[in-house]
Amino acid sequence: MKKVSITIKEIARQLDISKSTVSRALRDSSEISEETKKKVIALAEELNYYPNPIAISLLKNRTQTIGVIVPDIANRFYSSAIGGVEDIAYSRGYHTMIYQSHELLERERSASRHIASRRVDGLVVAISSQSENIEHFVSLQEQGIPVVFFDRVSDAMQTHKVRVDDYKGAFDATEHLIKRGCRRIAHIAGPKPVSITRFRLEGYKDALRKYDIKFQEEWVLHSEITQAGGTERTYQLMALRERPDAIFGASDRITMGIHSALRQLGYRMPDDVAVVGFCDLAMSSLLDPPVSSITQPSFEMGQQATSLLLDLIESKNTPAEYETRVLPSNLVINKSSMK
Amino acid sequence: MKKVSITIKEIARQLDISKSTVSRALRDSSEISEETKKKVIALAEELNYYPNPIAISLLKNRTQTIGVIVPDIANRFYSSAIGGVEDIAYSRGYHTMIYQSHELLERERSASRHIASRRVDGLVVAISSQSENIEHFVSLQEQGIPVVFFDRVSDAMQTHKVRVDDYKGAFDATEHLIKRGCRRIAHIAGPKPVSITRFRLEGYKDALRKYDIKFQEEWVLHSEITQAGGTERTYQLMALRERPDAIFGASDRITMGIHSALRQLGYRMPDDVAVVGFCDLAMSSLLDPPVSSITQPSFEMGQQATSLLLDLIESKNTPAEYETRVLPSNLVINKSSMK
Repeated sequence: MKKVSITIKEIARQLDISKSTVSRALRDSSEISEETKKKVIALAEELNYYPNPIAISLLKNRTQTIGVIVPDIANRFYSSAIGGVEDIAYSRGYHTMIYQSHELLERERSASRHIASRRVDGLVVAISSQSENIEHFVSLQEQGIPVVFFDRVSDAMQTHKVRVDDYKGAFDATEHLIKRGCRRIAHIAGPKPVSITRFRLEGYKDALRKYDIKFQEEWVLHSEITQAGGTERTYQLMALRERPDAIFGASDRITMGIHSALRQLGYRMPDDVAVVGFCDLAMSSLLDPPVSSITQPSFEMGQQATSLLLDLIESKNTPAEYETRVLPSNLVINKSSMK
Repeated sequence: MKKVSITIKEIARQLDISKSTVSRALRDSSEISEETKKKVIALAEELNYYPNPIAISLLKNRTQTIGVIVPDIANRFYSSAIGGVEDIAYSRGYHTMIYQSHELLERERSASRHIASRRVDGLVVAISSQSENIEHFVSLQEQGIPVVFFDRVSDAMQTHKVRVDDYKGAFDATEHLIKRGCRRIAHIAGPKPVSITRFRLEGYKDALRKYDIKFQEEWVLHSEITQAGGTERTYQLMALRERPDAIFGASDRITMGIHSALRQLGYRMPDDVAVVGFCDLAMSSLLDPPVSSITQPSFEMGQQATSLLLDLIESKNTPAEYETRVLPSNLVINKSSMK
């Protein structure tokens, strides 16, 4: 199909003014009268003329567009965070382009290249679980495209970061299970390279330590962030000679897998095995039994990361110091852990 | 922050060749030797140089990017369809930019404008429930940006369309309920303007007609495509003097609302009320009881819509005739309707 090209030239011809006048009117130059601007804009809209974004970008050094990369848009945590990104972006006059990495480094790199070539103004990212190397984001930053991390952050790059207090969330969940009488508490953790995996594992270990419960290597299993991963690791845990009396799941997908495996294997929650996870609340209420969950302010995380990003974009200078914001999580107790 | 500009000029200077040679090498012109091409590409990669997409677009008339607009990325049906879009796009060398309309006409128009101004090659769309007027898509098509509809289609525009056999899915679901002995079958339908609402409503009515069951106006309620909508409409149905003995839900969100409301009100499924819905199967297996569901080939719909779109983009001519593909749905029977 051939593209119909409607240009500044056509607007100039129809209004009998110079191309330079049209172009200055479209970028709201003070040299052009309000009356002329109105005429030009009205005709541009009539002709469905959208100014060349690269031309605007050269003038304003902006595209009024930000990108957001998350591992999986179907994950409720990320779709809610994207809602927060769009909320701030829209209110400040920016478009949002969404990419998903599917937890693959290769896809994340491909999205980064695309973002660089199409010249978005900046990027909000939750890093894929495969990405120990984040050179592709460093490279964007070096090219003047600011990158702000949320949820999954990296120490390998100086920039603004917004995350939840994963350590405290995991500590609270584990302490709650201990207070309910559980002593053999297993933890199905996320992939090792991911920052939140480490923070959550530390919270879990420190809670055990506080109550003088011995940490046992075989009760911590790492899993991909999928329901199938949670199911498989639950089989493995329940097959142990000394079975756990509680399982703490490190993500909502993993927790759904734990729930489904325990039901399938015939265990009662919480009597046989108590369960606490990171789980979407709307989802949890439909499960039987409903799952106790550490809730995270996902929408707010998206909002804050985006505010920080837009401030970087709109400021002329690199900030003296980058900020790491740590938002609180909250333990919501449900039937699955009420022993 | 200031953008670092690395240009064709720099590559030409470093390799001591002309700018035109660099530019032709980057677009794989046959006039340039393989050796020179390799050198240029290697240096371009080293310098993190990404060719100006508008320049490429002017040359090739392509950006190798497609856009996809869906009402809600968190809806499993759409996130799976987007997986299908990305699958085909990626394998054919295209990037995918994802937008969500949040079921708002205004957001859909804004995304369309953005897409027009950034010159993507084409667009795959599931129309928002607010969009009775789709002039914004007609306008994109007139500008030479092809648009293919999937799931929610419109008669107001001639283009390729991929949808599921909504009529037959609804007919099968209703017939199944009748065969299980239900006679007072309610239907919580989607918003009136949406194409799939009409198709599903017709399937429901025709199944009643086939078995000589009188259609009753008060048993069909329209709802937004949200869990809250399904819950509210279920309250309304169960408050009727003559209560339904079965409810057929028109979307997975609505069906989740029906399930949650019935449990909360103390009804047993299927004994008091049988339930069939359009529901994500992975989800359904975790519910108690699991919900009978009309499943739709969402991934495949995304794939087919994208293949049709890329064929339009890569063809030089407007096709003689546009195609409407109707994919089969499938009824999976679970405990919620096994009376």
